[in-house]
Amino acid sequence: GARALSSATPEKKVKLPPMVFIKGEEMTRYCMQLILDKWIEPHFDTSSWEYYDLSCKARDDSEDKVLHDAVEAGQRIKAIFKEPTVTPTEVQKKKMGLRKTWGSPNGAMRRGWNGITISRDTIMIEGMELGYKNPVLFERHAVGGEYGAGYATVGKGELRTLYYPEGVNPESDPQAGKLVDARHLRDSESAVVTYDNPLDNVTDLAHHFFTRCLKARVTPYVVTKKTVFKWQEGFWTRHKDVFDEHYKERFQEAGLLDNTGGELRHLISDAATMQLIRWTDGGFGCSSHNYDGDMLTDELAQIHRSPGFITSNLIGKSEDGTMIKEYEASHGTVADMWEDHLDGEETSLNPLGLVEALIGAMQHSAALSDCEDEAFIVDYTNKMRSTIHKAFVAGKGTRDISGDSGLTTEAFVDLVAEVLAGNDSLLEKIEESSDTSGKVKPKTNPSFRLVDKEQMQSFFAALDTDKNGVIDYEEFESGMVRLGVFPKKYFPEGPPSF
Amino acid sequence: GARALSSATPEKKVKLPPMVFIKGEEMTRYCMQLILDKWIEPHFDTSSWEYYDLSCKARDDSEDKVLHDAVEAGQRIKAIFKEPTVTPTEVQKKKMGLRKTWGSPNGAMRRGWNGITISRDTIMIEGMELGYKNPVLFERHAVGGEYGAGYATVGKGELRTLYYPEGVNPESDPQAGKLVDARHLRDSESAVVTYDNPLDNVTDLAHHFFTRCLKARVTPYVVTKKTVFKWQEGFWTRHKDVFDEHYKERFQEAGLLDNTGGELRHLISDAATMQLIRWTDGGFGCSSHNYDGDMLTDELAQIHRSPGFITSNLIGKSEDGTMIKEYEASHGTVADMWEDHLDGEETSLNPLGLVEALIGAMQHSAALSDCEDEAFIVDYTNKMRSTIHKAFVAGKGTRDISGDSGLTTEAFVDLVAEVLAGNDSLLEKIEESSDTSGKVKPKTNPSFRLVDKEQMQSFFAALDTDKNGVIDYEEFESGMVRLGVFPKKYFPEGPPSF
Repeated sequence: GARALSSATPEKKVKLPPMVFIKGEEMTRYCMQLILDKWIEPHFDTSSWEYYDLSCKARDDSEDKVLHDAVEAGQRIKAIFKEPTVTPTEVQKKKMGLRKTWGSPNGAMRRGWNGITISRDTIMIEGMELGYKNPVLFERHAVGGEYGAGYATVGKGELRTLYYPEGVNPESDPQAGKLVDARHLRDSESAVVTYDNPLDNVTDLAHHFFTRCLKARVTPYVVTKKTVFKWQEGFWTRHKDVFDEHYKERFQEAGLLDNTGGELRHLISDAATMQLIRWTDGGFGCSSHNYDGDMLTDELAQIHRSPGFITSNLIGKSEDGTMIKEYEASHGTVADMWEDHLDGEETSLNPLGLVEALIGAMQHSAALSDCEDEAFIVDYTNKMRSTIHKAFVAGKGTRDISGDSGLTTEAFVDLVAEVLAGNDSLLEKIEESSDTSGKVKPKTNPSFRLVDKEQMQSFFAALDTDKNGVIDYEEFESGMVRLGVFPKKYFPEGPPSF
Repeated sequence: GARALSSATPEKKVKLPPMVFIKGEEMTRYCMQLILDKWIEPHFDTSSWEYYDLSCKARDDSEDKVLHDAVEAGQRIKAIFKEPTVTPTEVQKKKMGLRKTWGSPNGAMRRGWNGITISRDTIMIEGMELGYKNPVLFERHAVGGEYGAGYATVGKGELRTLYYPEGVNPESDPQAGKLVDARHLRDSESAVVTYDNPLDNVTDLAHHFFTRCLKARVTPYVVTKKTVFKWQEGFWTRHKDVFDEHYKERFQEAGLLDNTGGELRHLISDAATMQLIRWTDGGFGCSSHNYDGDMLTDELAQIHRSPGFITSNLIGKSEDGTMIKEYEASHGTVADMWEDHLDGEETSLNPLGLVEALIGAMQHSAALSDCEDEAFIVDYTNKMRSTIHKAFVAGKGTRDISGDSGLTTEAFVDLVAEVLAGNDSLLEKIEESSDTSGKVKPKTNPSFRLVDKEQMQSFFAALDTDKNGVIDYEEFESGMVRLGVFPKKYFPEGPPSF
């Protein structure tokens, strides 16, 4: 019994189901407040939402009780939107008069919500050329690995790592441990390191990953360093078992294994670094350990223009088996724009990553609640997305997308608000007046600020071997091969040797 | 009192100082035998060399005593040349009728020779265009890290890692250990891992690295993941301390820190992956941990055309402080060419990497011995190198370099042998008849076999946005930036944020 968006605006505000809304800091907090005021509040009753303020000030004032409360709320409500937050440095601590350099809230959230994976995907905009032509999906295992390592710098001596099965107390019964590792340290100084990779939730991770790949119609890959790091074998076999038992046939039928010999393929993580650059057609997914996922999704963000075009969704699981999902943008609080704003200057913040996260959280909240307005909420939030996309493509985006003719932070939020209020003709008028024959490219790319023009020109000259000022196909191919940046043939039995 | 090479061939053979010559397998062993017979034996008395056969067969027959002997000889003589060897798989074990799948000899060598670093540098050829325009130097720490990790898959329970200082016996006094790490394992299956990074020889590594960088006039960088892996801090600080105390001024005077703000710079290893592609001008050096070095030098080899153009030298130190140096090629035994050879087909093996290693070992051996013929040995071996280079540039290289008009394995060895025997006019004739106006490029590149042409053409088309069949500078710049492959400006305070 859902109300369709195509019908007139409902007479009274639609009551949104419960959701956790975590507030952050600086420019992104300011922009989200505009969006709440102008896109959400006029159409919805948000009284079931719970707000938690994770600004440095609020964490300091509450001695981090607010983080504890936010995590508890997330466990209960299971749909969370989070704004970018600041993890204060020593300098910021002094500047803001904080008691402590409060740590990143990520660890508490991952633990509290039994984090399985951080899904980071390319945001695709129809009619706009970004880095990848088709979607790239990414799963980063949310637990384990080097981040949680214990380590110390020690001198000469012996190191022992022992495992005590459940029920054995290592303190009272030290000799009951089973030896995992024994090593003699000959140096006067050695760094020693211990960590673990919990494997139980890799099965859930695999299901989540393959389901998403199938839905997005992309080819899945599992990325590890298991050829060198033998202990990573379990991550791969768990994926492989889930795939072969539950998904293989469906992927085959969908033609998504045509380039992989009909099987789930493993990629070595250092090879994946290069593949991400080569496979700019997109249409693939990767599932990886925590650390590799961190590195590779950073690269993904750079290739797909910037972190503004990559999602970041923490997927966890509550005791009763319900999925807990927390959605956030991949970028930070955009501090430099906030400085400009405070100085009274115009700003133009692209809200796409933030809004994509808000859409995700609102839709998950609706799906969990089985509320009668689910279809309306889905339609409305989808319209938030499509309105942004259409405005971007029609040249009325923020300035990173549309250049000097782009809108300010506030004007862009207002434009979308008017369309969401029912003024669709406004968007049509803009679209009519714009040239939408070819694919639009963003006017500016944050990466261009980083280019060393002089070096770039000599790079170009190096490829233009006949020095006629342009690069033809032959020059291009040989240049790219020399750089090691090129699409590789698939050799089922591995590539030919030197 | 050395005899100059420019003088006539000495009346009697020059006696070479002691050197360890480790024989390997397949095509590279065959080719090295030709080189020994035709380049070395006619001019030198090699009776002080000690040969050790590390073929699978010989290791099996001696139950690996030959490896033990080779390591002992290396400790004694301190200058070692090693051919590529085969580490047999289960399949090869059966095929060759071995008792065991004998492991890689690398571990025994690194331990036996107190390995500090594996130096892997680009081989540069004047007049020939390879991947990098100027030298790239690389140090890979020869010990520690994930390769030597102890690990196990365990269930629920507790894990304890304890350090027992020298003199304490962990077995008889388990409670005397200091806690390095304690963790509760909640999963029914977890992979647990312990390893160490010995730091004492990082000081030697740093001296070796900076000395080499200064000599080659390249800018040094230290590469780690210390921002995430806090225990890697010591690797950086040891480099930094050595640099600031002993080298900084000299590097500043040489203008080698002009692009680094006058200081030694640290690179995060995942950023280094991209920098290796971007900095194709070369002129830099990197020093890194064992694992990072493995990955990054593999990438270096791909960019600089193939492992055939990268050195691989293990630098160790004996008890008395003398440097032990072992030289090898970066590539394997070239098994496919060996199959062709056994089938009676012509082959064309590029011996450059092997010869570069032989030159290194012979020159180190001469330097250690203080023999009166050191200058002659240096001149002669340098002529081996320059003759190969000149033949390559003049179009009389092996076929990977010179295409169809290139020489077979045997003919190329013969050509160089004739020049080394004093027939310099042969080389001059070849050089005269060839066009050496521009830089020569190798005719074939092993990587071209890997190119997916169809994908490559669509990659080209994607950059050729106006579809006129060629890529102009603007198209190139925007394409490369989208790919994330471009030379970056240096920002002393870090790059601007999103």
